[in-house]
Amino acid sequence: MAPDLTPYLTVTEGELRAALDRDEPALLPFYAMLRYPLGFADEQFQPVQADSGKRLRPVFCLLVSELLCGDYARALPGAAAVELLHNFSLVHDDIEDGDEMRRHRATLWTLAGVPHAINAGDALFALAERELLRLPERGVAAERVLRAIEIFQDTCVQLVEGQYLDMQGEQIRAPSLAWYKQMIAGKTAALLSAATGIGAAVATDDAHMVTRCREFGIELGLAYQMTDDILGLWGDPSVTGKAAGADLRRKKKSLPVVLALERDGPLSSTIQQAFDQGTVREEDVLAIMRLMDEANVRTAVEQEVGKHRHRASRALKRIIREGAVSTKAGVLLEALTATLTQREK
Amino acid sequence: MAPDLTPYLTVTEGELRAALDRDEPALLPFYAMLRYPLGFADEQFQPVQADSGKRLRPVFCLLVSELLCGDYARALPGAAAVELLHNFSLVHDDIEDGDEMRRHRATLWTLAGVPHAINAGDALFALAERELLRLPERGVAAERVLRAIEIFQDTCVQLVEGQYLDMQGEQIRAPSLAWYKQMIAGKTAALLSAATGIGAAVATDDAHMVTRCREFGIELGLAYQMTDDILGLWGDPSVTGKAAGADLRRKKKSLPVVLALERDGPLSSTIQQAFDQGTVREEDVLAIMRLMDEANVRTAVEQEVGKHRHRASRALKRIIREGAVSTKAGVLLEALTATLTQREK
Repeated sequence: MAPDLTPYLTVTEGELRAALDRDEPALLPFYAMLRYPLGFADEQFQPVQADSGKRLRPVFCLLVSELLCGDYARALPGAAAVELLHNFSLVHDDIEDGDEMRRHRATLWTLAGVPHAINAGDALFALAERELLRLPERGVAAERVLRAIEIFQDTCVQLVEGQYLDMQGEQIRAPSLAWYKQMIAGKTAALLSAATGIGAAVATDDAHMVTRCREFGIELGLAYQMTDDILGLWGDPSVTGKAAGADLRRKKKSLPVVLALERDGPLSSTIQQAFDQGTVREEDVLAIMRLMDEANVRTAVEQEVGKHRHRASRALKRIIREGAVSTKAGVLLEALTATLTQREK
Repeated sequence: MAPDLTPYLTVTEGELRAALDRDEPALLPFYAMLRYPLGFADEQFQPVQADSGKRLRPVFCLLVSELLCGDYARALPGAAAVELLHNFSLVHDDIEDGDEMRRHRATLWTLAGVPHAINAGDALFALAERELLRLPERGVAAERVLRAIEIFQDTCVQLVEGQYLDMQGEQIRAPSLAWYKQMIAGKTAALLSAATGIGAAVATDDAHMVTRCREFGIELGLAYQMTDDILGLWGDPSVTGKAAGADLRRKKKSLPVVLALERDGPLSSTIQQAFDQGTVREEDVLAIMRLMDEANVRTAVEQEVGKHRHRASRALKRIIREGAVSTKAGVLLEALTATLTQREK
């Protein structure tokens, strides 16, 4: 059973809404546009409570802070900053990848046009950064605020580097596992690592503990993205909202594809030929899925996931052993870590 | 005669090049792309020293710091941050406006494609922010660093708000002078205000002085943008690189157009009709220029410039009177302020 995160989600929503609140008349339509990716506005940019995503990153930020100092509220600006940054990257990624749908909703650029969507993404980026400057209002000392900002800045650079590698990946015929990990380290793991790192930075002066929490976030993020890659090929369409083999149609260099391309024989050549077409044909998707089954690719992927899940869970155990002041936060973190990396297939 | 700024420009170039230095092999082409807008790479993204712009904003940042504490070197990361932020906004603006040329060079998106150019802009944004975290290495105390970051964050938000207003301006038939000032306050003045404000924030704990320096930057920025708007219509093509009346062809809601639209009679109706066409016709450009001459629009624009130039110069005089420790920096700031707001027509 998934742990109950209601209190954390409630305060996060409040902080996020406040960050996007601006009453300058000429700018009201602009801020309405910014609320859309967060789920606070509908496709006409009118107020609504849509499915707002899982808010995973803020929850991890709050829980790590509570774990280490008994208080989650002081990390709230950090939690909101990471979620805004995540949404910035989704808005720009969707333009860059030409994706028209996300979480069953039209992407921002399809509604507002590319120029406004670029600028709206920039705004979410700018507002994310500015959120961190609300940490002093929560009683966080200047040195700790600077450490949180430093983690955040590193993350921003990792994000754009990861996105560059992802876009370049389309040109790489046989991407290596090392390339794949470098790419998702930037694109996914960096954000989770920012969440856990900032949660720790506001809670403690112990630099080693902050580093350990960042490492926990990285391993968690790697396992999470790899699990997502499994769902992108073998996920239940009624749960994921995508047809089976969806990532193949997008020619995505996801972990199953990367590992499959390392094999000799018909599997890699079939993928190469299918990806060389303008549009991947349905019969090729089926053929690749069948060849992957025969080659036990999924087992190899699950071994990789297992490796990082194990590292994440070991890192968390050590953090709890050495620094926990809240048993409750520790229990929730362990449950959430398990849920995330073993999602329903 | 323009003041000699060589020492300030030299250190700025060094700091900027260091900010864009990254030796990770997979990312070399990415960082090469980032160097292009700064003038450190040619159209094939190979190293070169092209015309790198005037670096106005960094120079103001360094001079204000020197003025108030006798040392410009400590403001260097701030100066580089503001220049990187400026370049981020140019890269994204060029995509949003569909501009293919800037300063006689192809814009980044025409060379790298829109997806990579969006991401490269994001990278310049991220690296700009990160530069500020190098201030402690220069001996700037944590509280002052936080104040510099705060100014920077405010600026980022103002930039995206200004860009939104600018893009919306295409839909406004009769923009007011208030709308125009709000828009350029965000798009141009905010960056100069960040430069002077951060220069002050690293040099002094006196919050009033920092505010005063930000105000100086705003007035300077308003006068500067308005002067640029004059050049956009009446500038010497051999100096500006654009044909006379260039801003009319782009349907830009620049100050002359905004003031002209406030007049009754044939001037405003001719502009409205010309802008309603898909492409502005050459005979309309000539007709509008002639009607503007008859209506003395240029005089009205120059009165506005004069007002803000006067305010900038008065603000600077007060700053010098109350806080200057370096006579040399004061003299340079006054000369530069005069040059910028009275550029060759």
